Amino acid sequence: MRKEYLLTPGPTPLPPQISLAMAKPIIHHRTPQFQAILKEVSSGLKWVFQTANDVFIISSSGTGAMEAAVINLLSAGDIALVVQGGKFGERWTEIAKAYGINTEIIDVEWGKAVSPQEIGKRLKANPQIKAVFVTLCETSTGVDNDIQAIAAVVKETPAVLVVDAISGLGAVDIKTDAWGVDVVVAGSQKGLMLPPGLGFISVGPKAWKLVEASKGGRYYLDLRKAKKAADKNDTPFTSSITLIDALNEALKIMQKDGLEYIFKRHKIMADATRAASGALGLELFAPTAASDAVSAVKVPAGLDGEKLVKTMRDTYGVTIAGGQAELKGKIFRIAHMGYIAESDIITGLACLEKVLTQMGYKFTLGAGVSAAEEIFLKKENN
Amino acid sequence: MRKEYLLTPGPTPLPPQISLAMAKPIIHHRTPQFQAILKEVSSGLKWVFQTANDVFIISSSGTGAMEAAVINLLSAGDIALVVQGGKFGERWTEIAKAYGINTEIIDVEWGKAVSPQEIGKRLKANPQIKAVFVTLCETSTGVDNDIQAIAAVVKETPAVLVVDAISGLGAVDIKTDAWGVDVVVAGSQKGLMLPPGLGFISVGPKAWKLVEASKGGRYYLDLRKAKKAADKNDTPFTSSITLIDALNEALKIMQKDGLEYIFKRHKIMADATRAASGALGLELFAPTAASDAVSAVKVPAGLDGEKLVKTMRDTYGVTIAGGQAELKGKIFRIAHMGYIAESDIITGLACLEKVLTQMGYKFTLGAGVSAAEEIFLKKENN
Repeated sequence: MRKEYLLTPGPTPLPPQISLAMAKPIIHHRTPQFQAILKEVSSGLKWVFQTANDVFIISSSGTGAMEAAVINLLSAGDIALVVQGGKFGERWTEIAKAYGINTEIIDVEWGKAVSPQEIGKRLKANPQIKAVFVTLCETSTGVDNDIQAIAAVVKETPAVLVVDAISGLGAVDIKTDAWGVDVVVAGSQKGLMLPPGLGFISVGPKAWKLVEASKGGRYYLDLRKAKKAADKNDTPFTSSITLIDALNEALKIMQKDGLEYIFKRHKIMADATRAASGALGLELFAPTAASDAVSAVKVPAGLDGEKLVKTMRDTYGVTIAGGQAELKGKIFRIAHMGYIAESDIITGLACLEKVLTQMGYKFTLGAGVSAAEEIFLKKENN
Repeated sequence: MRKEYLLTPGPTPLPPQISLAMAKPIIHHRTPQFQAILKEVSSGLKWVFQTANDVFIISSSGTGAMEAAVINLLSAGDIALVVQGGKFGERWTEIAKAYGINTEIIDVEWGKAVSPQEIGKRLKANPQIKAVFVTLCETSTGVDNDIQAIAAVVKETPAVLVVDAISGLGAVDIKTDAWGVDVVVAGSQKGLMLPPGLGFISVGPKAWKLVEASKGGRYYLDLRKAKKAADKNDTPFTSSITLIDALNEALKIMQKDGLEYIFKRHKIMADATRAASGALGLELFAPTAASDAVSAVKVPAGLDGEKLVKTMRDTYGVTIAGGQAELKGKIFRIAHMGYIAESDIITGLACLEKVLTQMGYKFTLGAGVSAAEEIFLKKENN
């Protein structure tokens, strides 16, 4: 017998009532019963996306929704400006290239946020740029980009701003309409506390003009079809009924808590993780732009980072994430997005301390956990 | 309190152990634990597809897998031969057109199967045709096409055969390798007894050459990426973990039963439904090519077909399907695919008889149910 803990940046653990919702008998998707669910979900999505724009649901992973953004807004030969500061920034470039879209790239050092001024400079230098693609929370490095400042720059230009908020939505703030973000993409298995399988995309009026003008081929991911169906409270193809029903539960739970509380909760979990890392003598990978959704921590010199993650998972049942691509073995990532409570952070940190000790790293046992406890206690007194 | 019955051609009811599998805590997809599941699923899929080819899993509806077939095999300007004998045959054409692929169309009267000889003639007349797109079970009309005979014709030509088996797989026989079917597409919410959300596609060597040669843009649905990942027991993008875990359960249940038994079971359910229709004085819409997966029955003259379906569902909790597109109000469809037992058919028929009576249609009450009982009883004596 052992208990398993999931502290990864997608999938994230599911509240038991959401898990149980998925065990309910399935209903047909072209019925008044399912339309009622879709209607609630649609309004719940607008709430969590902080937008009055349509939020379309796609049966796909988050990448499918990213692709929907690219191919609906742009056609081959168009120019896109892509911010690349990690694996998921690079994904925007890969998708654009697969469709013959020309990319101008802002290469940001991994672990840093992009400079909004740099985006402004590039847009000024090339007025042909039709869309800017950035990442809210760059999951691979634990960095949050300053979307509010970026949006302020982009909205003064003819370009539209597209934000990959897959790891960020429901964990850190993104005020789609208030900040003027044209397109926001998200996925189900992060802050929304669902299994993977649903992608989401909100599209504002400035972006919708591009959707209508784009000449690229599209069918399954055609947002014009999605819009036509959504206007009739439907989806263009068979909905992922079970996941959408579970999404409805998740959105209700979130609405009860409120966005302000949700973001504050994520910040406290992140603060505790960051304080613990410091107390253990570990360095954050992204100290200047650390995300409240996931913390990336440098593996101490001389220690095998992959072994650390593997031992925590395979021997002790605590799954955190290692580094990806060039960061493989060099960082580990503790996610605190979605259904993560103080108890999960404490458990994760205690397990980290246990394995670090076994691997020969020197520190005061309990220092990380007690630093986290202090943060949690301070919150109670505020 | 009322019991709900689902007799629609997708989604289909889920066995309780599959529903419960979806309520299990989620696990991470890049772990040995999930890789073990993917490995079992991969071998189970090959078994149900009756192929040694790779069967790729896509997080999408069945349409996403159809699109994967089109865009991976063909590029703009290529020529495809499409068999159109219903709504889902038309979908092949719509997808092809969305990508600038030229289509030659065999328009089959709705309710009839395509003539394999006609396919041969068209291929001979135009040797530029690269691929033939057909439907195994045309859900909209309740017709099964003769894939074995079609494959025998197509395999003598340079063209590849692509079969939409979304409604057929796991309900009626399709011997992918023995018959020589190059590409088979399926979905999760039919014979596989799962919620919608997964698409599948098997690709044989003749078709794989086209996948490598196609010049069209693709990313999320790129089968080259799927192949690269599958070779490492992985998926290119975040897997729909919960659905894949449930798929593993479903495939185990099916393997225990065996394909021969499964197809026989579907045939008996179909025979019972057809016998009942006859006993009620109702005509099958597709008497010469009736599918064992779904029965399409003509609405008696003067009766409102939409009201019939709506009353059965909204008043009595038995959900069957109406007609689509040009068949709206003119047929109703009782599906007997997946987790459908004698009890479901009896319940569906009794409810049909009740509502037909209420709507003023004249017949001997119980005639349909007793015709079905006879079929079920005969089976016990064989």
